[in-house]
Amino acid sequence: MKLAVVGGGSTYTPELVDGLARLRTDLPVDELALVDPAGDRLALVAGISRRILARQGHSAAVTVHEDLEPAVDGADAVLLQLRVGGQATRNEDETWPLECGCVGQETTGAGGLAKALRTVPVVLDIAERVRQASPDAWIVDFTNPVGIVTRALLQQGHRALGLCNVAIGFQRRFARLLSVEPADVRLGHVGLNHLTWERTVFVDGIDVLPTLLARHLDAIAEEIELPAAVVERLAVVPSYYLRYFYEHDAVVRELRSRPSRAAEVAAIEARLLELYADPSVDEKPAELAQRGGAYYSEAAVALVASLLGAGAAAGREDVHVVNLRNDGSLPFLDDDHVIEVPASVGSAGARALPIEPVEPLFGGLIAHVAAYERLALDAALHGGRDRVFAALLAHPLVGQIDLAEGLTDRLIAHNHAFLEWA
Amino acid sequence: MKLAVVGGGSTYTPELVDGLARLRTDLPVDELALVDPAGDRLALVAGISRRILARQGHSAAVTVHEDLEPAVDGADAVLLQLRVGGQATRNEDETWPLECGCVGQETTGAGGLAKALRTVPVVLDIAERVRQASPDAWIVDFTNPVGIVTRALLQQGHRALGLCNVAIGFQRRFARLLSVEPADVRLGHVGLNHLTWERTVFVDGIDVLPTLLARHLDAIAEEIELPAAVVERLAVVPSYYLRYFYEHDAVVRELRSRPSRAAEVAAIEARLLELYADPSVDEKPAELAQRGGAYYSEAAVALVASLLGAGAAAGREDVHVVNLRNDGSLPFLDDDHVIEVPASVGSAGARALPIEPVEPLFGGLIAHVAAYERLALDAALHGGRDRVFAALLAHPLVGQIDLAEGLTDRLIAHNHAFLEWA
Amino acid sequence: MKLAVVGGGSTYTPELVDGLARLRTDLPVDELALVDPAGDRLALVAGISRRILARQGHSAAVTVHEDLEPAVDGADAVLLQLRVGGQATRNEDETWPLECGCVGQETTGAGGLAKALRTVPVVLDIAERVRQASPDAWIVDFTNPVGIVTRALLQQGHRALGLCNVAIGFQRRFARLLSVEPADVRLGHVGLNHLTWERTVFVDGIDVLPTLLARHLDAIAEEIELPAAVVERLAVVPSYYLRYFYEHDAVVRELRSRPSRAAEVAAIEARLLELYADPSVDEKPAELAQRGGAYYSEAAVALVASLLGAGAAAGREDVHVVNLRNDGSLPFLDDDHVIEVPASVGSAGARALPIEPVEPLFGGLIAHVAAYERLALDAALHGGRDRVFAALLAHPLVGQIDLAEGLTDRLIAHNHAFLEWA
Amino acid sequence: MKLAVVGGGSTYTPELVDGLARLRTDLPVDELALVDPAGDRLALVAGISRRILARQGHSAAVTVHEDLEPAVDGADAVLLQLRVGGQATRNEDETWPLECGCVGQETTGAGGLAKALRTVPVVLDIAERVRQASPDAWIVDFTNPVGIVTRALLQQGHRALGLCNVAIGFQRRFARLLSVEPADVRLGHVGLNHLTWERTVFVDGIDVLPTLLARHLDAIAEEIELPAAVVERLAVVPSYYLRYFYEHDAVVRELRSRPSRAAEVAAIEARLLELYADPSVDEKPAELAQRGGAYYSEAAVALVASLLGAGAAAGREDVHVVNLRNDGSLPFLDDDHVIEVPASVGSAGARALPIEPVEPLFGGLIAHVAAYERLALDAALHGGRDRVFAALLAHPLVGQIDLAEGLTDRLIAHNHAFLEWA
Repeated sequence: MKLAVVGGGSTYTPELVDGLARLRTDLPVDELALVDPAGDRLALVAGISRRILARQGHSAAVTVHEDLEPAVDGADAVLLQLRVGGQATRNEDETWPLECGCVGQETTGAGGLAKALRTVPVVLDIAERVRQASPDAWIVDFTNPVGIVTRALLQQGHRALGLCNVAIGFQRRFARLLSVEPADVRLGHVGLNHLTWERTVFVDGIDVLPTLLARHLDAIAEEIELPAAVVERLAVVPSYYLRYFYEHDAVVRELRSRPSRAAEVAAIEARLLELYADPSVDEKPAELAQRGGAYYSEAAVALVASLLGAGAAAGREDVHVVNLRNDGSLPFLDDDHVIEVPASVGSAGARALPIEPVEPLFGGLIAHVAAYERLALDAALHGGRDRVFAALLAHPLVGQIDLAEGLTDRLIAHNHAFLEWA
Repeated sequence: MKLAVVGGGSTYTPELVDGLARLRTDLPVDELALVDPAGDRLALVAGISRRILARQGHSAAVTVHEDLEPAVDGADAVLLQLRVGGQATRNEDETWPLECGCVGQETTGAGGLAKALRTVPVVLDIAERVRQASPDAWIVDFTNPVGIVTRALLQQGHRALGLCNVAIGFQRRFARLLSVEPADVRLGHVGLNHLTWERTVFVDGIDVLPTLLARHLDAIAEEIELPAAVVERLAVVPSYYLRYFYEHDAVVRELRSRPSRAAEVAAIEARLLELYADPSVDEKPAELAQRGGAYYSEAAVALVASLLGAGAAAGREDVHVVNLRNDGSLPFLDDDHVIEVPASVGSAGARALPIEPVEPLFGGLIAHVAAYERLALDAALHGGRDRVFAALLAHPLVGQIDLAEGLTDRLIAHNHAFLEWA
Repeated sequence: MKLAVVGGGSTYTPELVDGLARLRTDLPVDELALVDPAGDRLALVAGISRRILARQGHSAAVTVHEDLEPAVDGADAVLLQLRVGGQATRNEDETWPLECGCVGQETTGAGGLAKALRTVPVVLDIAERVRQASPDAWIVDFTNPVGIVTRALLQQGHRALGLCNVAIGFQRRFARLLSVEPADVRLGHVGLNHLTWERTVFVDGIDVLPTLLARHLDAIAEEIELPAAVVERLAVVPSYYLRYFYEHDAVVRELRSRPSRAAEVAAIEARLLELYADPSVDEKPAELAQRGGAYYSEAAVALVASLLGAGAAAGREDVHVVNLRNDGSLPFLDDDHVIEVPASVGSAGARALPIEPVEPLFGGLIAHVAAYERLALDAALHGGRDRVFAALLAHPLVGQIDLAEGLTDRLIAHNHAFLEWA
Repeated sequence: MKLAVVGGGSTYTPELVDGLARLRTDLPVDELALVDPAGDRLALVAGISRRILARQGHSAAVTVHEDLEPAVDGADAVLLQLRVGGQATRNEDETWPLECGCVGQETTGAGGLAKALRTVPVVLDIAERVRQASPDAWIVDFTNPVGIVTRALLQQGHRALGLCNVAIGFQRRFARLLSVEPADVRLGHVGLNHLTWERTVFVDGIDVLPTLLARHLDAIAEEIELPAAVVERLAVVPSYYLRYFYEHDAVVRELRSRPSRAAEVAAIEARLLELYADPSVDEKPAELAQRGGAYYSEAAVALVASLLGAGAAAGREDVHVVNLRNDGSLPFLDDDHVIEVPASVGSAGARALPIEPVEPLFGGLIAHVAAYERLALDAALHGGRDRVFAALLAHPLVGQIDLAEGLTDRLIAHNHAFLEWA
């Protein structure tokens, strides 16, 4: 079995490799093909990846590629974890929206739109080349904004799923609080990527969310940075990203009172690359946890195993929270919209599990953001200032004409190099 | 035929009477029953109403009632135009939301929620008593927020429609700009009450909206107080109330830089009542136009005529923009939601005309506000601080926890006298 | 010796009485004349005052008066602690500025201006009647805004001093932290009323402020609700009121997210009056501490003792922080401005102690607020919308035309009943 | 006579040359030495400068220099018009303060502080080298922030004056409105650089400001972009820069709703340089007026003439509005502060004319900004994050701790290359 990773030079890759080693029984990978235009960085990452596999006695080959085609040729699955424009552009996504009083974030609001505009054309081009090289390969997208990118892929008929680490993070966290195995925790996770709520937490067929909130309210509220009293009142657990909505102005004030996070992340990355360069390091470094993206490897490797592993071959299906076509799961959204919910995953792909009707308090916001996402994809595919403006005016965190005008101008000015039409 | 008007002491009533006189052929009213607890004011309004009818040779009797039952007994239609709490409370609706940096308006945002909470129980009680007295009477609601109030009525099985003057205002305005008869203008009006867009303007089977915008862009943009460039780009005409969304912060700044409108309206009302008290005045005074509510009588009388008049008796149906049950017209909303669209109206009631799919730029906001409306009605029916908070958090103009907390406390403090549970 | 208290029905009065009892040796008062138009309340307050004195074996008579002249006739000192408009108006001072996004506070910003406009004419009238009745009586003003009111009194040639409890509060607090007697702590307190900084804290001739900050930074920062890191950097202790400047927008957000404090204070007052009505209560109740105004009696009684007591008679002078004429103490302010600084007080009145040059970081704000105070007094004395607007435009917490317009309209609308010219 | 211009490659220089040609009688310049490190640009500017002089029959030589010393050697006056960091940094000064909700402007607020920090050390170094080369030369500073830079120069004992074009702009504008000669208009201009008000406008010994405002209120208000009603009420003419204070939030909203002005200015500059490169162009191009800086040459040449020209030689003094030492002119500011007022200028330098007491509405803001300026110069001279923070906290447009923290971090991050200590 061959796995290809586009953006394989990411500092996250060792986390993925660590997961492969741990799940080798179910997912016997022969080759891990890392592709990245940044050759120096890729070499460092490939080095530590090989040492991690070797230390754990895994025989898979790690190959490195600057070009896509040889890397994906014959691949069974292709993971997308690229970042168009790199950390420098991320820093911009986090900064210029603040000039307009809007949250600066790389997946939500105006920054997320910028990322979508930069990313969708690149991903579609890659996916098309993957299809030429390996028509049956699964494409698993981690590149943000995952919902919009996955919808772009599905619209073009690709065999794609989108994946995010928010759900698995809650699963692990709740399991620890409940002293049970993660695999025994089944989340009632619902919404759009980075706009989700855990409405139930089933263990052994019982919804233990009320118990969890009764016993661990403060710990949970602290983790998602929302007031405990409100979490208690809502009786669900919003994802951390809901804070950008529910506490938007407070977040803007926080971001204003300190420098952007770019320097922070850059420092962590530099330290990681230093460690990766050290030939004596043959384990995933502890520092990687600070980088964000916890449990990412778990989620990715387990999902690929369900699609392609021994269990899948034997006709088994497992439940994963993934981004997939709505097809009536949320009846207030279009069928071709992409939602993030628990799904049964096997060799035939993913089918969403049935979903209880969504309460208006969550559904209204989901519908509003979904409308934005449609316009965002439209702008990403067809370009033009008017489409960017429309997407921003449609976003519940913008919604005002003068803000949308100012953000549109800034988005274009800061992303000129990535927008063919600009 | 008997018409009853609940809140008949309103200074608007002469406008309605004027309409009755003009449409007497199609709608031969014998009795106009005005009911209002404010007896002095009612007497003044009844006086001028009688003089207007007399001057125009209309023989209908105008009766006055402090109690509801005798007024609605035997009525064919009951018009609801009451205002719970009067102008003083309206002033509050326009004021305390500003303390939290939110628009102060009596139908939109937190002020609109306050009005819903005060109004729904009163209207439901009235409707129940109407049903006892005149089971077949139509109830036509003008009391804001019309969408929420109408849904409350329909949910209880009343024969009700909601009516607003926004659509007829556009119809008349466009007819004037196009030099055609208002009746020849067919609007592609869509959305929820006070959250609508004109997407087409048909005259003789042709959509003249592009022409209208090409020729009269500045006049139209000025009327709805939005930038002409944006109206041109959107290529639709948003209602004036969209300004509270598209220019929210600018409106807040404006409201902050001047006193509240209460004094203004109070002064106009005082002047109107003075005129009504003058026995020589037997026409609708010109000053009434400043009061807002233009074309209200036209819309109301014509709608009742379509339900109950000669044409209805003859099986004819006319098109009116009304608030009615969705029933799939907007597929992204629940069937039992109330929407504001053109409908074919006859003796059997109203059926929505088919609607083109709604663009995401409008649909996202409609869905978000509809979710708020559901929670608002829930709070109006069942009370409790948590329901008020949830409705506010669900509103796209609030959406943040701390604002929702502060607004909830203020709403309750300012409306204590009207909320049984508070 | 006779002391008169204008606004003697205040729930604070028992605190003052308690102080008189404790300092009876130095200040042998024969009669305490309480004057207040609210007779019922005054009776309750007088009752507990008599019981406190009796319990402590103090023989002074407590007399009650609804009219001013008999109360102040023959008085040696007259304390002003009235509140024009009462708690209801205070609530308004705290509320309507929020509509404009400005802090709602009864001494700072637009609310403070409203209080000045209501208070200055009343206080000047009282002072004139005091002068007629007892030409030699000292007038000690606690009524806010103390700086503006005191300047109004001095301009009219009254024998007046202004007093606030901020300085004595710091003195007691620092003494506790340092484990020394309050009398041994000499503050380097400088600025205008409610706009002051402690720049030094001398104990036995040594400035222990650096030590205090080194050892108790967090406790001190918590008390004034400013970030410890900033207090450390400034190396001075700003008064709590500086928070309305240094954290203005954060305070506005806090005020927005909860109801106004009126209900809170009203509840405390109701509880206090209940206790005062209980004939078995003959001590200052512990609940009084929640009312704010800690150490107020200490400061007041000690100041009067320095002016009139045995020590004064013997030619002694004591140091108190008071509001008095600048006369060159702060060279960047006019001589006739009123500043709040330590002064040597004896039978001849108060003389400011020498003051080190004020650093620009504090002096700039002092000068700006002093300019506002001059315009505020001008508006209080001569009235007119333009003067109110000018004072608001001159205030560093307003400073913008549209805010000043909106605040002016609201101030006048909410204080109509108290403004002769409005 | 020799004039040296530091930053002579500026696109403004032809305006200056044009002025020299027109005033050649009073100021017979033999050599105009342009110094600028940007050689290519300097060559273009020198070319058109020579053609302008030639066309007007002026015999002065225009010399170009990349190094300072040869340019200033033997100079009678040195004009400073450099811009440290160029237009790119100006764009940043206009942008990052917006991230914190503060006005982005290169002379006012946080952007102005950034410019001061970059500029002061460079100017002081230049001035010292001028003193070595030509000890008696006058230094005339146009480089912003003129007030702070001039104070830095005077503190080091340089023969310096600061100059700005705001006053001469009003003089010309008022002269046109009044149909009199500019020289007949004497302004009552008072304040700090970019923080001034015209309090009187004397023509033939009569203050015609009331007449001007009565007749031309709208034109004047439009020019300074303030509401006419407020200008009328204030009865003075604030400079355009007051808008950043009086309408701060509205300006921020404007800046947010459109891209930064950098592109605009860059486009104008590119067009100007193109014209300068055209050998057929031998006049100041009309496009130069769009660049801002109107009447700059008039003011500069006339000021130098008063210092060094034939009139000065004959003992004559002329009145110019300049930046010079306060020395008691505004008694509420320190003697060594630099103010901008009318002064009598001759060979001995400048002496401020007597000034009427400044009204509190203006004086409070002047004093506050002056305190900021002192801390800004302190930060420029001695560096360090704490000094930058203190200056920002002292600025009336910042004043809040969290804004000052965020702005400090951004200022340092964006100006790292120019701050030796950072």
